[in-house]
Amino acid sequence: MAQFINTKETLVTEAIDGALRSAKGRLARLDGYPHIKVVVREEWDKSKVALVSGGGSGHEPAHVGFVGKGMLTAAVCGEVFASPSVDAVLAGILAVSGPAGCLLIVKNYTGDRLNFGLAAERARAYGIKVAMVIVDDDIALPDLPQARGVAGTLFVHKIAGALAESGADLDQVSAAAKRVVEDVASIGMSLDTCTVPGSPKVMRIEAGKAELGLGIHGESGIELVDFTTARDAMAVVLDRLGPHVGTGPKVALLNNLGGATPLEMSVLAEELAKSDSIGGIQYLVGPAPMMTSLDMRGFSVSILPVGAGDLALLQTPVPMVDWPGCLALSAPVLQPIPDGLTPIKPIPSADPATAAFITRCCDVFIKAEAALNALDAQSGDGDTGSTLAGAARALKGAIARLPLADLTQLYRAIGLELSQTMGGSSGVLLAIFFSAVGDAASGGQANVQALKSGLTRVMEIGGAKPGDRTMIDALTPALDALPEGFAAAAAAARAGADHTAKIVRAKAGRASYISEDRLSGHNDPGAEAVALLFEKLGC
Amino acid sequence: MAQFINTKETLVTEAIDGALRSAKGRLARLDGYPHIKVVVREEWDKSKVALVSGGGSGHEPAHVGFVGKGMLTAAVCGEVFASPSVDAVLAGILAVSGPAGCLLIVKNYTGDRLNFGLAAERARAYGIKVAMVIVDDDIALPDLPQARGVAGTLFVHKIAGALAESGADLDQVSAAAKRVVEDVASIGMSLDTCTVPGSPKVMRIEAGKAELGLGIHGESGIELVDFTTARDAMAVVLDRLGPHVGTGPKVALLNNLGGATPLEMSVLAEELAKSDSIGGIQYLVGPAPMMTSLDMRGFSVSILPVGAGDLALLQTPVPMVDWPGCLALSAPVLQPIPDGLTPIKPIPSADPATAAFITRCCDVFIKAEAALNALDAQSGDGDTGSTLAGAARALKGAIARLPLADLTQLYRAIGLELSQTMGGSSGVLLAIFFSAVGDAASGGQANVQALKSGLTRVMEIGGAKPGDRTMIDALTPALDALPEGFAAAAAAARAGADHTAKIVRAKAGRASYISEDRLSGHNDPGAEAVALLFEKLGC
Repeated sequence: MAQFINTKETLVTEAIDGALRSAKGRLARLDGYPHIKVVVREEWDKSKVALVSGGGSGHEPAHVGFVGKGMLTAAVCGEVFASPSVDAVLAGILAVSGPAGCLLIVKNYTGDRLNFGLAAERARAYGIKVAMVIVDDDIALPDLPQARGVAGTLFVHKIAGALAESGADLDQVSAAAKRVVEDVASIGMSLDTCTVPGSPKVMRIEAGKAELGLGIHGESGIELVDFTTARDAMAVVLDRLGPHVGTGPKVALLNNLGGATPLEMSVLAEELAKSDSIGGIQYLVGPAPMMTSLDMRGFSVSILPVGAGDLALLQTPVPMVDWPGCLALSAPVLQPIPDGLTPIKPIPSADPATAAFITRCCDVFIKAEAALNALDAQSGDGDTGSTLAGAARALKGAIARLPLADLTQLYRAIGLELSQTMGGSSGVLLAIFFSAVGDAASGGQANVQALKSGLTRVMEIGGAKPGDRTMIDALTPALDALPEGFAAAAAAARAGADHTAKIVRAKAGRASYISEDRLSGHNDPGAEAVALLFEKLGC
Repeated sequence: MAQFINTKETLVTEAIDGALRSAKGRLARLDGYPHIKVVVREEWDKSKVALVSGGGSGHEPAHVGFVGKGMLTAAVCGEVFASPSVDAVLAGILAVSGPAGCLLIVKNYTGDRLNFGLAAERARAYGIKVAMVIVDDDIALPDLPQARGVAGTLFVHKIAGALAESGADLDQVSAAAKRVVEDVASIGMSLDTCTVPGSPKVMRIEAGKAELGLGIHGESGIELVDFTTARDAMAVVLDRLGPHVGTGPKVALLNNLGGATPLEMSVLAEELAKSDSIGGIQYLVGPAPMMTSLDMRGFSVSILPVGAGDLALLQTPVPMVDWPGCLALSAPVLQPIPDGLTPIKPIPSADPATAAFITRCCDVFIKAEAALNALDAQSGDGDTGSTLAGAARALKGAIARLPLADLTQLYRAIGLELSQTMGGSSGVLLAIFFSAVGDAASGGQANVQALKSGLTRVMEIGGAKPGDRTMIDALTPALDALPEGFAAAAAAARAGADHTAKIVRAKAGRASYISEDRLSGHNDPGAEAVALLFEKLGC
């Protein structure tokens, strides 16, 4: 799988610089490329406890995305899935630590633990107060004492970050971080592995299966389970988490491991919210990509039991767009469908002349059915005649319930009838035409002007204009000539319709997909229908 | 490709409900499932111009993610890649439109244009003021008058939304929207197609190629181009956009089409920012998924020339987390590497007794090299002896530059030497041990107590504890007995080391991966080394 990178070697440094390009005033980096890849808060004055986290790259937005007021002070980045060096971590600590000291938040992987650990010792030799917490929230491997650190780390960043921002001292911040580490539990599930830049993708998950209990570095899940639906997937995940999270109110963090779509993540959120397998899940962080594993199509759930204090810290706003907030869960709020969706039935009224006029128009289309179908077969699917004739028959059948004596309402009523009886784009466009004419008439426009307004609206919505080989090529000249009478309009419509036979490059409608030689010499069936109508009315 | 959904038929309604679960007070939906899928601002009082957008689903976070104060008032959602019905759009319009009226923001696809268009007519029949803009920002198809609407739509949402929120009337809001539509240009590139739920994935892009000029519904790009690097990809995209965007200051919107990783998107942002092929790109929206095409591994760039007025509207903060803001572009801000990264060289000092003691210790390991290697071969890769002997030789060679007369500095100096000369995890752990001992000693702890503090730190960082079959099993009892003298410590270390032969389930280090029968009956080489050291010191 190709990726939008330049070289594997420059991937992380270029990505960090890309992130910094629009972060002036908020983020800076240490001038130590390529070995020292450390992003720091630019406006940081060292007056409070600094929070330093990091690790291998490939988990974005962790960790650079969470550097900012109220979360991390510095992110120390390694290459993809590789721990940063001791020097890089030390540079990060030295860059941001003041008299209040520094808390290192480290995910439990050997490389990170050792490199952050040794860097902490080095920093202490300079008299810097350094504390360190090791996050081991993954419950996938119950027998291994060294549980991995995964997305539950975000809770540590946010709670310790908010506390540090409030001015708490290092002991208080460390104690809060340790309490979160103690309480949080996470597990992930994936339908696909991740694509490590520069390496071929390992396709190890067969169809119908999912990996449960995976890490965030492409390592296999501890179990291959059957996969059926989002509902079952969430049920399995919550079932595993249940024994680890106690009773009382809880926050769930729903993390996109990278490759799941927002639609899928929202469905998973819905299943999480609806499930009662773990009681007390009252708040949700996400769904969002927070601690990803490159492009892995998977998710993880982290559960943290919270009291009021930690909840307030989780809900303190931060400016980083990658932190999705911590919001109360509730049933979706429903509002009633507004009145007016069922169209108001017009009050029928009689007008024999108008009824006769409409009938006469309809009969034109009914009579021309076969001819228009034949014409349409030259450039389309041969149904223009049937479509128009069907609509005409339906309209004739509806005459008794039309408001024939009120022209404005009549136009609207015809639009409504056509939208309900005539299928396809042309049905909608004719409905728009008559509705818009009614709209213009109600606004006081005279008849021809109102018809022209309808045509304008059809051109706007339909996107066709004169010369595009559509019914507009007949209707436009016909309406222009109409003030001079039906005969003049008929002549103009006929000229316009006949001209369409010379338009061999259709620009709108289905004919735009047809080759030129198939179009040449045949009138557009819509334009022809308009011409036939005016010719009948004009004679 | 399996996906985290339940059924294709319930995908969109479940996803909307999932999004609404944590949106109480902000978002509601109309009670019209399954046909009417309309999300509205819950707190909306209809006092200002309403903005209604939408279209097929599969483009998340568009459009539900942009409903909120300062952007959309309602999002009308169709099924995946399918336009919503006229009734659904009408319901959305009626639900949010007050006396100030409503602007429909429609992407230029026939279905959306017709259904939104007819719904607008219906709403007008109720006396509602409705304006409509059709966004056609895609420049991929230069000859087609019907350009598609893609991610440039976000500019319309944001600028018109901020204007409406400020209290502008419908004419002003519509005029601004039309001006943006007129000015914005977009094009996309992808390395892979999207996976439509319920349909098999079409693999049509061969290796080494990318599609340029694609829509957001899985339709093919207009060109298949060679793909080499992110730099070239961005160059091609900007080259196509150049002729469409004029001169003067501009905003670029960098949209993730769904499946590109944040690392890739940041690299693309870096290339966009560094490029000078289009002058005047001073602001960036993103990179972020805004107008996606399910899981398509691609991106699009939209360019909008802006004056101060539109820029202010783009930069007005909104509460929706899916809007990434519009930030000024600048070079990454660099800070110097902090002092102290190069460890302070200790000032050498003489102390013949200490020098002799260190030499004696080192000689133990040098002499035991072969024996410890043999022991390690039983449970590991047979290099414990060589690793320790190598470090011992290096330390002996460094004696002349050690601060032998200052015990605190000496411990730290030994830690530093070991971190530089002894590879692997054990080198880091021993460096941590000696650094922590020095740290404790500088804090005033007596010698044995300081050594114990070092051991505690090693256990914290390394994650091993007594009973895990490591050197800790000898060092812990040795330090406990050390106040009684070296002989007592030696006896305790020996007992501890010999006990490791009975620990057949290693819990830390590499031996944890070795089968039980291979471990049984052999001492852990690290513990054995500790025992040998104390035995030598005790005799």
